[in-house]
Amino acid sequence: MATKKVAVIMGSDSDFPTVSKAIKKLNALEIPCEVHVMSAHRTPDAASSFARSAKEAGFGVIIAAAGMAAHLAGVLAASTTLPVIGIPIKSSNLGGMEALLATVQMPSGIPVATVAIDGAENAAILAAQMLALSDDKLAAKLTQAKKDMAEGVAKKDAAIQEKLKEL
Amino acid sequence: MATKKVAVIMGSDSDFPTVSKAIKKLNALEIPCEVHVMSAHRTPDAASSFARSAKEAGFGVIIAAAGMAAHLAGVLAASTTLPVIGIPIKSSNLGGMEALLATVQMPSGIPVATVAIDGAENAAILAAQMLALSDDKLAAKLTQAKKDMAEGVAKKDAAIQEKLKEL
Amino acid sequence: MATKKVAVIMGSDSDFPTVSKAIKKLNALEIPCEVHVMSAHRTPDAASSFARSAKEAGFGVIIAAAGMAAHLAGVLAASTTLPVIGIPIKSSNLGGMEALLATVQMPSGIPVATVAIDGAENAAILAAQMLALSDDKLAAKLTQAKKDMAEGVAKKDAAIQEKLKEL
Amino acid sequence: MATKKVAVIMGSDSDFPTVSKAIKKLNALEIPCEVHVMSAHRTPDAASSFARSAKEAGFGVIIAAAGMAAHLAGVLAASTTLPVIGIPIKSSNLGGMEALLATVQMPSGIPVATVAIDGAENAAILAAQMLALSDDKLAAKLTQAKKDMAEGVAKKDAAIQEKLKEL
Amino acid sequence: MATKKVAVIMGSDSDFPTVSKAIKKLNALEIPCEVHVMSAHRTPDAASSFARSAKEAGFGVIIAAAGMAAHLAGVLAASTTLPVIGIPIKSSNLGGMEALLATVQMPSGIPVATVAIDGAENAAILAAQMLALSDDKLAAKLTQAKKDMAEGVAKKDAAIQEKLKEL
Amino acid sequence: MATKKVAVIMGSDSDFPTVSKAIKKLNALEIPCEVHVMSAHRTPDAASSFARSAKEAGFGVIIAAAGMAAHLAGVLAASTTLPVIGIPIKSSNLGGMEALLATVQMPSGIPVATVAIDGAENAAILAAQMLALSDDKLAAKLTQAKKDMAEGVAKKDAAIQEKLKEL
Amino acid sequence: MATKKVAVIMGSDSDFPTVSKAIKKLNALEIPCEVHVMSAHRTPDAASSFARSAKEAGFGVIIAAAGMAAHLAGVLAASTTLPVIGIPIKSSNLGGMEALLATVQMPSGIPVATVAIDGAENAAILAAQMLALSDDKLAAKLTQAKKDMAEGVAKKDAAIQEKLKEL
Amino acid sequence: MATKKVAVIMGSDSDFPTVSKAIKKLNALEIPCEVHVMSAHRTPDAASSFARSAKEAGFGVIIAAAGMAAHLAGVLAASTTLPVIGIPIKSSNLGGMEALLATVQMPSGIPVATVAIDGAENAAILAAQMLALSDDKLAAKLTQAKKDMAEGVAKKDAAIQEKLKEL
Repeated sequence: MATKKVAVIMGSDSDFPTVSKAIKKLNALEIPCEVHVMSAHRTPDAASSFARSAKEAGFGVIIAAAGMAAHLAGVLAASTTLPVIGIPIKSSNLGGMEALLATVQMPSGIPVATVAIDGAENAAILAAQMLALSDDKLAAKLTQAKKDMAEGVAKKDAAIQEKLKEL
Repeated sequence: MATKKVAVIMGSDSDFPTVSKAIKKLNALEIPCEVHVMSAHRTPDAASSFARSAKEAGFGVIIAAAGMAAHLAGVLAASTTLPVIGIPIKSSNLGGMEALLATVQMPSGIPVATVAIDGAENAAILAAQMLALSDDKLAAKLTQAKKDMAEGVAKKDAAIQEKLKEL
Repeated sequence: MATKKVAVIMGSDSDFPTVSKAIKKLNALEIPCEVHVMSAHRTPDAASSFARSAKEAGFGVIIAAAGMAAHLAGVLAASTTLPVIGIPIKSSNLGGMEALLATVQMPSGIPVATVAIDGAENAAILAAQMLALSDDKLAAKLTQAKKDMAEGVAKKDAAIQEKLKEL
Repeated sequence: MATKKVAVIMGSDSDFPTVSKAIKKLNALEIPCEVHVMSAHRTPDAASSFARSAKEAGFGVIIAAAGMAAHLAGVLAASTTLPVIGIPIKSSNLGGMEALLATVQMPSGIPVATVAIDGAENAAILAAQMLALSDDKLAAKLTQAKKDMAEGVAKKDAAIQEKLKEL
Repeated sequence: MATKKVAVIMGSDSDFPTVSKAIKKLNALEIPCEVHVMSAHRTPDAASSFARSAKEAGFGVIIAAAGMAAHLAGVLAASTTLPVIGIPIKSSNLGGMEALLATVQMPSGIPVATVAIDGAENAAILAAQMLALSDDKLAAKLTQAKKDMAEGVAKKDAAIQEKLKEL
Repeated sequence: MATKKVAVIMGSDSDFPTVSKAIKKLNALEIPCEVHVMSAHRTPDAASSFARSAKEAGFGVIIAAAGMAAHLAGVLAASTTLPVIGIPIKSSNLGGMEALLATVQMPSGIPVATVAIDGAENAAILAAQMLALSDDKLAAKLTQAKKDMAEGVAKKDAAIQEKLKEL
Repeated sequence: MATKKVAVIMGSDSDFPTVSKAIKKLNALEIPCEVHVMSAHRTPDAASSFARSAKEAGFGVIIAAAGMAAHLAGVLAASTTLPVIGIPIKSSNLGGMEALLATVQMPSGIPVATVAIDGAENAAILAAQMLALSDDKLAAKLTQAKKDMAEGVAKKDAAIQEKLKEL
Repeated sequence: MATKKVAVIMGSDSDFPTVSKAIKKLNALEIPCEVHVMSAHRTPDAASSFARSAKEAGFGVIIAAAGMAAHLAGVLAASTTLPVIGIPIKSSNLGGMEALLATVQMPSGIPVATVAIDGAENAAILAAQMLALSDDKLAAKLTQAKKDMAEGVAKKDAAIQEKLKEL
């Protein structure tokens, strides 16, 4: 069984600097992905037709990033049974709170797996965790990443002891 | 020129008690309206196809009521150039704040004319104000309603003088 | 029938950088407009007298932009039956949340069609949508703008494919 | 010099149960007051003409109570140089937060002396403190009330010792 | 390959009325599940040891429901690479806002797939979507459920036409 | 009768840039004032003893500015029957929201006349309005200032017509 | 060394139902306590004089419960170097958010150890943890309570297995 | 009896600039401390094992600083009966509000003594107040610090009189 692809959809190309963290993480985990700019409001037909055919097209998970009245993840989730992960993007006025609420507060029947505001890297890891349910090699990579992360903290703990001497 | 109709769309039939205030007001102003339950998430195709053909079908304004991650107004606005009025519906947890933000914080290009949380009557009046731009008879009704409203307050002011005696 | 004008009222001249986006959009759509600085609190009489005579003076829609305890749109709406569109202006402290609430949470009888915080361009489009109800030429422009917007997103989608190679 | 009157204005007669606490307190302090239902939005002319002539009519302080997009206090303050005290009234959806922000976040030049949400009694006391600046008898009453209040707490402290035995 | 189980963990047995909606949905979809009361704070060792061995024990997804400073989902996610779905539970004071933020705002490296406040049914559907990535029969059930849901809305739309006559 | 003084108390000298706007306004209105740094938490005895003797010392109004858990105005109000005006000072984290709530949400019996976040100029005007109740000369100045303010807006309206040509 | 007492101060006797949970817990842990109604605003002198002499009077920790603009804990902390624990009490309008912010957001130099909104039991446990630093018997009780709590959860986990059968 | 140590744990080394204020204060008060980077999510085992053995290792108080879904303090408190002080760290999006709520809203049985957002210095003072319960020398230092603080304010009051002349 070929690895399923991850679709990374952003509502605006201005979201790219944040969303690129998800793409880099997927690349690092060697998960194939496709990236698109599509808007729930400006290209509604493109968005829903993408979602409707995503499973057929070999996608396993859809990541959707959007700000303000962030409808993108919900609109995609409305037209697919694939898991959809929503990244609320910070806006300049309300700190991303409105994007968080518009992404997470979905009605019964159409869940969106929401991560933190601007939490693009976690969106990629969550997608990997889903795909790893039937991909032992990917699962092993995630286990290793968790160990590396713990070691990274241990190193920072060591480094902080040095900084203390400067206080 | 025949009067344009108003479409009143609610995301869930549980919104009916609130939305009915809009319908009653439209009826009182003798504005023809059609009422539907349609969901941005549960019936996305029905919703966007309704919006796409709304103008052709003789509608002038669309009123959309939804709660929680209230995407309905935005999804309709994405597929029509008719003005779309959004009524954020109060939810049990966050007082309707998430519906307000998900309705009003639309990106550039696709406005939603948002009224107060549960502000169904105002949605109807706003629709009437829009239609009255080319309907003098309706405009006259709105002017009269404004006068009635002021007189109503004056009557309440008189009544309160009586209540004061009981303090 | 001559095209109705749009009034663009701002509560303070410091709102001009944001409000100018609405004016530019109205200009681009060839909708005649008049622009004024008027304050619900500093020039209450000017504001209400403008609203009272706006219809007579050939206006079809009033756009009002104000920050903080943003009363301007409500005060204008109190004295006219024309549709009033409110733009909540971001303040330095609360991100525009107080202006949003003070604009949108209007009592029954006096609606304000509220757009996003600093959503000046959408205010202009919403005004155009209202006027287009009886102006087929304007309606055609809005339909075209919607197509252009979708094409713009498609171009950005193409451009992002290039950016991906740099990751 | 005759004692100046306090005007108590409420935006809706539904605010009366809360506002009556202010009236009772004014009565208890023997401060003459007039009570009216007037709305910034439904009777804008009545409201601003009241404010314009309030000083001439013998008023010293205006108390204004309103909920939701609470513009009443601001609208009154716009047309008088008398001190205006604003009582934000709790609404069913947002707990009065929008009324608080719409009342207190006034622009430079037109202050509203805002008290707590539903803080009608404090509005009356604040009005009394203002009038007491030139009324020694009233000042003495306020000093006495402060002492009584402290004694009331002392009595409650004693009573709570009894309740403790039941735990 | 045997179907993977879903673990449903709640932080307190008082969460059961809400969480039971997730369990019923999993039952309806014939997904095997285990249900436990475990607390990030009261039984931290039980919680982390459960998470550490969950994959070995045949679980595919963990659903965690908790209120207030809702650490449960995060604590479980810290000790497993399985996807963890977080249900923020409404509290009596802040409407579940603190549980939502404490669940969703996870740091980079340890995602929690957050659903709406009290969104237990969606948590179950999301878990099913994840498992369906490698379970075609389950995927078919989800597709069918989506159709049923749309038909349900269509029926409610028909029913509302009847209610309209009573207005 | 000599004019009563205004006390301007700030909780920290870091509040001075904001508070100085109040002082300048009082100077402009020729109202005598005294300015102090006093803290509800760092110098509680100085603060309450100042408040207790303020009336005797010839003060008519106390203005108190404080940020974060802004207790200063409340602490002063606890020990005087003079009207106390509270200025919530913006903090770096929550935009001054906590200072606003800690200043305005006073319990029954001890009002604080709260102005907008960082609303120092309005605090001075409000103090002037209170003192003007028994000072006709000051009242005349306030009336004149209101006219000047309206004229200032009219001038800005004229200026904006010039700016429009540059769009 | 005799065990130090805990002072439990509430701002209003209406806080007693919540505060009594702290008292019961202290009783259960056999920690001597004194309970008083004292108000930062209504009895400021009593409050600060209590705090000033608390250490001399044999108190080790002060617990202060207050709602709205909850200054009580801060006012007590201003006049003692004993640790002060603050319990923000829920109000009817804002869910206790204002009490939380007014209690926790203390300026540098005067900390208040804040617990959850209405978190009276935790205030008692926290006081016990502080006193246990020099009281091994009390420390042992806390260790035992922690075990009991974990066992309580285990029992609830067992009980929930029964409830599952009823679904 | 040797002085008990204070543990200062931060969730990420990026918290060091804020946390260092606590360390400096502890150093100034000559309270021995150990500083570590440990994460509730990245090194959950290290964190809970540290907490479990902290008392044995001679610690008296644990200070934990974390941002976003700040679980660190709660996770440490779950595994010790020592008092745990939580410092919510400001994040870039929500101003630290989510860290505050995730730290303070702990369930019954496991308190976290929460200080202000970024309130590191107060965390150190609070720890000192706890240790001073059985350390008279430390208590004397705290009393002296309180006096110094009051004198510092008095000096700033004097300095502000100079600044006034420049207005």
